[in-house]
Amino acid sequence: MAKDGITPRSEDYAQWYLDIVRGADLADYAEVVRGCIVFKPTGYALWEAIQSGLDQRIKATGHQNAYFPLLIPKSFLMKEAEHVEGFAPEVAEVTHAGGEKLAEPYVVRPTSETIIGYFYAKWVHSWRDLPLLINQWANVMRWEMRTRPFLRTTEFLWQEGHTVHASEKDAERETLLILHEVYADFVEKEMAIPVIRGRKTEKEQFAGALRSYAIEAMMQDGRALQAGTSHNLGQNFAKAFDIAYTDQKNQLQHAWTTSWGVSTRLIGALIMAHSDDEGLVVPPRIAPLQVVVVPIFKTDSERLRVQEVMRCLTVEWQGRLRFKVDDRDQFSPGYKFNEWELKGVPVRVEIGPKDIDKGTVAVARRDVPGKPGKSFVPQRGLTEYLEGLLASIQQSLYGRALKFREEHTYEAGSYRELKDGVEKGFVRAYWAGTREDEDKIQEETGATIRVIPLEQPPERGKCVYTGKEASQMVVFARAY
Amino acid sequence: MAKDGITPRSEDYAQWYLDIVRGADLADYAEVVRGCIVFKPTGYALWEAIQSGLDQRIKATGHQNAYFPLLIPKSFLMKEAEHVEGFAPEVAEVTHAGGEKLAEPYVVRPTSETIIGYFYAKWVHSWRDLPLLINQWANVMRWEMRTRPFLRTTEFLWQEGHTVHASEKDAERETLLILHEVYADFVEKEMAIPVIRGRKTEKEQFAGALRSYAIEAMMQDGRALQAGTSHNLGQNFAKAFDIAYTDQKNQLQHAWTTSWGVSTRLIGALIMAHSDDEGLVVPPRIAPLQVVVVPIFKTDSERLRVQEVMRCLTVEWQGRLRFKVDDRDQFSPGYKFNEWELKGVPVRVEIGPKDIDKGTVAVARRDVPGKPGKSFVPQRGLTEYLEGLLASIQQSLYGRALKFREEHTYEAGSYRELKDGVEKGFVRAYWAGTREDEDKIQEETGATIRVIPLEQPPERGKCVYTGKEASQMVVFARAY
Repeated sequence: MAKDGITPRSEDYAQWYLDIVRGADLADYAEVVRGCIVFKPTGYALWEAIQSGLDQRIKATGHQNAYFPLLIPKSFLMKEAEHVEGFAPEVAEVTHAGGEKLAEPYVVRPTSETIIGYFYAKWVHSWRDLPLLINQWANVMRWEMRTRPFLRTTEFLWQEGHTVHASEKDAERETLLILHEVYADFVEKEMAIPVIRGRKTEKEQFAGALRSYAIEAMMQDGRALQAGTSHNLGQNFAKAFDIAYTDQKNQLQHAWTTSWGVSTRLIGALIMAHSDDEGLVVPPRIAPLQVVVVPIFKTDSERLRVQEVMRCLTVEWQGRLRFKVDDRDQFSPGYKFNEWELKGVPVRVEIGPKDIDKGTVAVARRDVPGKPGKSFVPQRGLTEYLEGLLASIQQSLYGRALKFREEHTYEAGSYRELKDGVEKGFVRAYWAGTREDEDKIQEETGATIRVIPLEQPPERGKCVYTGKEASQMVVFARAY
Repeated sequence: MAKDGITPRSEDYAQWYLDIVRGADLADYAEVVRGCIVFKPTGYALWEAIQSGLDQRIKATGHQNAYFPLLIPKSFLMKEAEHVEGFAPEVAEVTHAGGEKLAEPYVVRPTSETIIGYFYAKWVHSWRDLPLLINQWANVMRWEMRTRPFLRTTEFLWQEGHTVHASEKDAERETLLILHEVYADFVEKEMAIPVIRGRKTEKEQFAGALRSYAIEAMMQDGRALQAGTSHNLGQNFAKAFDIAYTDQKNQLQHAWTTSWGVSTRLIGALIMAHSDDEGLVVPPRIAPLQVVVVPIFKTDSERLRVQEVMRCLTVEWQGRLRFKVDDRDQFSPGYKFNEWELKGVPVRVEIGPKDIDKGTVAVARRDVPGKPGKSFVPQRGLTEYLEGLLASIQQSLYGRALKFREEHTYEAGSYRELKDGVEKGFVRAYWAGTREDEDKIQEETGATIRVIPLEQPPERGKCVYTGKEASQMVVFARAY
């Protein structure tokens, strides 16, 4: 029962995703710029909502925004051994400018640890300068082979936090603060997507990090999507760029740094966590538009009557609900229903002459398509009703996603069970293998260890692959 | 009586500007990336305030935000004859990516008319699709020879609006709407900088425009700074990129487009319009921080008493004032006064034990340095007093800037008077010269025609250069 032009999820999940992106008018392929997209207004509005919610949390935890150059001298990338290995193959290079060949090429930032490290070395002198807590909203570029709208594009938008601390303990505290109070809190409360918080294995960690943490979410095809990462960089970049401070005993010490980021791929996560075969579904708290009102009338006198009641009803919504009255003349109510369903507006209110006679309006929930989600509600107290409804939709979407994850998470005691499990969802298993074992498993199953969850069972167990005694439980999944 | 480290304006205005940028900690030179700066937190916070005020106005006039690719195929730049002439010499080129040489190089966008034009041609089909009203917040890059923090940097941040219309009249209306309701309104009301609104001469207009409009502000050295531009692009880009629509008579027509932008150079305007020899001065409406509270005490018991009163006084400020209590232990009150003066916080409140005995606080206005700006104010009703004071500082800064401009604007009836006038400020003069005459005047005086003001005197006059009868009055000035 999918909408025209939308391939059902059950038929072809990857095509369904692209159909939603196009149907909700979120993005356009920039076929003339390799692997890039245009973020169209409906898609960009989702990014603005994400930015605003994250920016508040980033500032509330004591960080300030700044902006560093887009171009990085190519030699900077070479200063941290693992970093260059991770990023050098996928950078875009500026070799000419102002009509001349440059003496040294620049790379377009794939991430900014190196250029920011250079400045931090200039700015940090004493323990009094620490912690240094800065975030940047920026575009970055990675020349990826296979791209997909929002999930993986050559250019994407993100925030990248970069902080400097006096000790490993302070850096670790920062790394986890961001993971919990900024990323997990935002993605769970605002985007209604439950996440698993955990540490990355060495194989999956950031190029140059001491320890990487991530939040991982389950999409509706059972795959994992890394929704945010927070890295304790140890002293690796501090040593490469000589970020040092004089401590309280007047000793010169290398500092400890962190970096953390989330990107426009969160829009992809939003789509794949909640949407259905009718189009996009957006949780009310993040929705640029929460309620759309569609007038229904046949004659001019009906139209006037409906308009008057609409004005009355919506007068107190300003500042309480993000809403739009869709009074476009050239489109029928049916056309409008279809468009706003595709675009995922959480609630639709319909008002026609019959509703006015009865003192009611029709209210349709986007998260429960068709008849079951439609009800008739008294005009009196409508604002409070809608506020309550939006809150309950938010909760319901979170609950639905959590239930889905639980139903698609399997415990594996054997490699056979692991192989079966990752066909359908997440697999929780004890782990004591090596990096080579992980590579082998990925080759054979397509799955990787997404995280070592911070919450661990009290008891030890037997490694799903080696059979050795294991002190930790990990989560395997195929990932975006 | 300038502050330590700040060259007085009267001595060396250019050096004073750089001293303010450094003293207020607004930016750092990115000496490793040609002509770039780092926007440090204090400087970036000004940009965030500017963004927020402009973004509200851009949306209130019916525009939506979107995001287009950073890279533009080099051939796109060539499609509009004047555009390529204006921008090709100053672009940065990406020639290699992902470890390989590219078949066609990309340029890093110097502005986005061409790449956006390409997409608009795909999106616009019918008169029903018009107007198309989109804005983008982005970084852009122009390989400039001489750079100066904020005023001219290789990479800068800006917004660029790009719209499509069915007729020249609609495009012209849009161009002027942006000039008046978005740019002039914002710069005058929020930044307290009076501007002259006018049209650019052919010599000064945007490469590829039919008509360019601008708002021009006077800096404290009498020079002009172009604070925003709005271009009616006619059908130039519509023809180059084939943006066409079917009209109501089913005829295919080329559309009319506009583009308009303001950039981080507004931060430079803010500095140069209001600041003094003590540091930055920021108008209250745009100030990230409006009030700073500095406690004064000697003993621990005084400290406790002062803290308690501060808490009491500031409890109702949340949501009404943007404030900070500076309770840093490692710095003296004098050090703090100096720092916040340098950073331009509009109002400082001091509370010490003597103030508490008298039920007052000391209030110092940043715009009136030293004793004349300091007064003792009752604690009762302090919030309302501060709100009123901030409003009056805003007005006073605008009034001061307007008075300065009026005192430094001269009417010239002869070329001699024009030459004298542009040494000191703006010159208003009748004009009937050619583009070559304009070039000549620039060579001889360093001044250009900044704008042909939209507000014109009713009578005609004699051209200041050619002596011919002239139907328009123009404004000459040296410009940033």
